[in-house]
Amino acid sequence: MLRGTNLPSVGVYNQTVVFELIRRAEHGVSRAELAVVSGLSAQTVSNTAARLIDEGLIVEAGTQIQGRGKPPVMLRLEPRSRFAVGVNLDAAFVSYVLVDLAGTVVASAHRPTPSPDDHEAVVAEMVQEIEALVVSAGVERSRVLGIGLASQGPIDADRGIVIGHPTMKGWHDVHLRNAIAESTGLEVVFASGVNAAAVAEQWIGDPGRRDFALVYLASGIGTGLVVDGRVVFGATGNAGDGGRIIVPDSGVPNAETQMVGHLVTAEYLVKQAVEEGVISAGDDVDAQFNRLLADAEIGVGDALRIFHRAGRNIGAMIVTLISVLDIAEVVFGGAYWERIASHVLPSIAYVVQTSDLRGTHSEIKISSSTIGIEVPAVGAACLVLDTVLSPRASSLLL
Amino acid sequence: MLRGTNLPSVGVYNQTVVFELIRRAEHGVSRAELAVVSGLSAQTVSNTAARLIDEGLIVEAGTQIQGRGKPPVMLRLEPRSRFAVGVNLDAAFVSYVLVDLAGTVVASAHRPTPSPDDHEAVVAEMVQEIEALVVSAGVERSRVLGIGLASQGPIDADRGIVIGHPTMKGWHDVHLRNAIAESTGLEVVFASGVNAAAVAEQWIGDPGRRDFALVYLASGIGTGLVVDGRVVFGATGNAGDGGRIIVPDSGVPNAETQMVGHLVTAEYLVKQAVEEGVISAGDDVDAQFNRLLADAEIGVGDALRIFHRAGRNIGAMIVTLISVLDIAEVVFGGAYWERIASHVLPSIAYVVQTSDLRGTHSEIKISSSTIGIEVPAVGAACLVLDTVLSPRASSLLL
Repeated sequence: MLRGTNLPSVGVYNQTVVFELIRRAEHGVSRAELAVVSGLSAQTVSNTAARLIDEGLIVEAGTQIQGRGKPPVMLRLEPRSRFAVGVNLDAAFVSYVLVDLAGTVVASAHRPTPSPDDHEAVVAEMVQEIEALVVSAGVERSRVLGIGLASQGPIDADRGIVIGHPTMKGWHDVHLRNAIAESTGLEVVFASGVNAAAVAEQWIGDPGRRDFALVYLASGIGTGLVVDGRVVFGATGNAGDGGRIIVPDSGVPNAETQMVGHLVTAEYLVKQAVEEGVISAGDDVDAQFNRLLADAEIGVGDALRIFHRAGRNIGAMIVTLISVLDIAEVVFGGAYWERIASHVLPSIAYVVQTSDLRGTHSEIKISSSTIGIEVPAVGAACLVLDTVLSPRASSLLL
Repeated sequence: MLRGTNLPSVGVYNQTVVFELIRRAEHGVSRAELAVVSGLSAQTVSNTAARLIDEGLIVEAGTQIQGRGKPPVMLRLEPRSRFAVGVNLDAAFVSYVLVDLAGTVVASAHRPTPSPDDHEAVVAEMVQEIEALVVSAGVERSRVLGIGLASQGPIDADRGIVIGHPTMKGWHDVHLRNAIAESTGLEVVFASGVNAAAVAEQWIGDPGRRDFALVYLASGIGTGLVVDGRVVFGATGNAGDGGRIIVPDSGVPNAETQMVGHLVTAEYLVKQAVEEGVISAGDDVDAQFNRLLADAEIGVGDALRIFHRAGRNIGAMIVTLISVLDIAEVVFGGAYWERIASHVLPSIAYVVQTSDLRGTHSEIKISSSTIGIEVPAVGAACLVLDTVLSPRASSLLL
């Protein structure tokens, strides 16, 4: 990290700054405004904008009347000038998205994972699907900046390896990143699913949000963290396993059963509901869970109680995260979240807002992600955009 | 954050890089080596070194024979060229240190907190003690870069306010930073005690350590976090309250009693020991705790069991931190830690190394801080040095 910098690096850096400001300006921005906001000279902004127009990344988009005098020409992002592929590998499904520079999904696919234990078959199908996605979208391959790959862990981010997988037993030290890169000839970046999801929230969401957690509920709970504006990947790329946070559930004092990731699964809620006579016993957990949801939907108190308790447990996890990291905001997402959100949100909010947290007395903001359930795949694609296009002070270093 | 950069900022930045490289080189470093490591040209390194010598921050320190040819002149830090004051406010004591550029404490004082509820009296004495410390050390005031202030929280870091204090009841929205700055005429930086301690570990410790927790045990447990080389202060400056992490202790499922910060206090260990007949009941908790420690020292199994359990609880907290943040190392410190370390370390290590953590299979490094029990005060002083002297890519921005 202790590297100096020089003028050519400064040029590259300033270009990413100007580009990022244009990307963030929903209705375009003038050269004069760019100079004020960036602190750069009018001449530097002008030269940089010319280069970005040459590369097709931005366009001039008419003028905007602002008081008297010649109205300034607005610059805006050309979202369809570059694309990135995002892939999320899950035990049941592999999701594929093609996103443009605005983070908008322009094509997507969702396929059952073929023979999950045979990683070679999975990789072969991934490569095929990626090619098909780009072709079907009618996007020139030269406009694809790269592929972002997300997987559950544990992973070895530096080496691009899936070390293991909670349910796909055949996945042991699989060199996933290199396999995809060699077969497609594209740059591949690699991250855990929940960290990729945090990248999506950071890239697409409110840029003023500097300290937040993206709590992702699918088969378990993941906690993608953004601290001081940067996604926390961790020493080996495995940060975000917040499902292991212990919460004070009633019952047996045993680490395994007190982890929040265990206490909020559909399986566990169904088990509780059966034990407490809320629903009858059965073999089909999914059908039973749907019954429980339907009961809650029509206001059956016993069913509401089960979700209320799950919400309290999620809330207790959030309180731990706030205590440890002093985050100011929590964003929820994931397919399981979308099913249970309305029944657990009130008790989550109650636990968080009434806990005697340290810090200033401001309220913790709680919301649902607007990116949708494919947020890890979208985030993997955003990781490509972010790597290639974002201003990083570290890119200044020689 | 979206600011461009230019040549003058680059000059300032490169100077901090060269300075940091010299500061980190224990036995000095030559201009040629600096050019290689920093990526800067020989000319830039030479000019920068000349400026640093002019400012007295570094000196030429003779030559070093390296093969044939003219031996290169070595450059090294002049540690006594600048100083910073660090102050840590605690309910019982206020600690004062004067550190040099190497982070070495050159003078210190430790005073009982005068009438802890009267914050005006505390501030008045702080100012007096700071002046006395600088005078007694024979350091010219112009060489003091500023004052670092650490306090337990909750704090409002941006506004320099102590919002409240766990035990000093008179402290409510006290504008501590401004009060000290106005009275001394020096720059004052402000942080929570445990975050200041993390800064000390970062400034003085191994620079290769990028993801670690500084677990500070005094009246409670604090967890100062360093993620990707940067101290996590949090949205309001209150990150690091890891004492609120819940661990699976035996007993009543109640949030308050399951927080690790509660389960490892001397009071709680004494209470357990009395309940289990390990020591007899008494009024003087400190005397009882010393008895418990003495018993453990000579290997009394019942006493060892009490500490063993405390170690398991601390270990469970570490496992949570690793799961959430994927840190690779834990450093312990604080006065209470120094008393219990030898009795709890084995069980901490056992819990951490045997837990089925995600991430690569590398061992988590566990050690004790070498900075000593004044680490929050030292860290507060280091925060001054860090603010003024460290290369920060963000300082490049216009």
